[in-house]
Amino acid sequence: MTVRAQALFANEAFYYAFRTRDIVAMDEIWSKTTPVACIHPGWSALTTREAVMDSWRSLLEDPQSPEVYCRGAEAFPHVGEVYVFCYETVGSSLLVATNIFVEESGSWKLVHHHAGLCNPPSGGLPEEAEPGAMQ
Amino acid sequence: MTVRAQALFANEAFYYAFRTRDIVAMDEIWSKTTPVACIHPGWSALTTREAVMDSWRSLLEDPQSPEVYCRGAEAFPHVGEVYVFCYETVGSSLLVATNIFVEESGSWKLVHHHAGLCNPPSGGLPEEAEPGAMQ
Repeated sequence: MTVRAQALFANEAFYYAFRTRDIVAMDEIWSKTTPVACIHPGWSALTTREAVMDSWRSLLEDPQSPEVYCRGAEAFPHVGEVYVFCYETVGSSLLVATNIFVEESGSWKLVHHHAGLCNPPSGGLPEEAEPGAMQ
Repeated sequence: MTVRAQALFANEAFYYAFRTRDIVAMDEIWSKTTPVACIHPGWSALTTREAVMDSWRSLLEDPQSPEVYCRGAEAFPHVGEVYVFCYETVGSSLLVATNIFVEESGSWKLVHHHAGLCNPPSGGLPEEAEPGAMQ
């Protein structure tokens, strides 16, 4: 499996944990050894793991949170690090996200998530990447 | 100079080129050998160097573009890659940005910029990082 494919898989696992409100999986997805940061849409930056995980607990426990789907993910691998950007459909809203993963003991851990509202791409929104890949 | 300091310097150079509308410097700041991507506030993602540089030419040539200042930059170094997030003040608007740099022949080149509107941090906005450092 290429680094690009591994990163897209890790990215999809993140959105799957998000969508299924799985806080245990979300906790495993975020690095426990590398400093992390998270920028939710419109929020200011969260820069400690405690603040980041508190935010996810609050989002995943909220029964009003809409389902999030990832579409058009593209991975950009570097040495020991890969970032993915993708679109997110959240209800009727469209967002774009940057997700950075670092390699730790052979697996890719999320260290940074930044999502915000955006306009649709001029060529239309890509189909969902690898639908059902995590099921 | 630590990687963190080098990254903050590269990040400040990016905002200085932005603020002074220096398209030649901006072209030097962005990597010419690593794939790049750029997400301007509200735009969809630009994923070719040509599209990214076209967008900067259009922004820097626009006399209506407001001045952009970087505040509260923090760098997160990994092996061969470092990302910086910072706040941007653009007129009366507040944005937050993720900027990813990779090391190429001893210098740090920008490969990804993602900026979007945000709310002020609860503790207030940090002072501008190293004011005048690039002058």
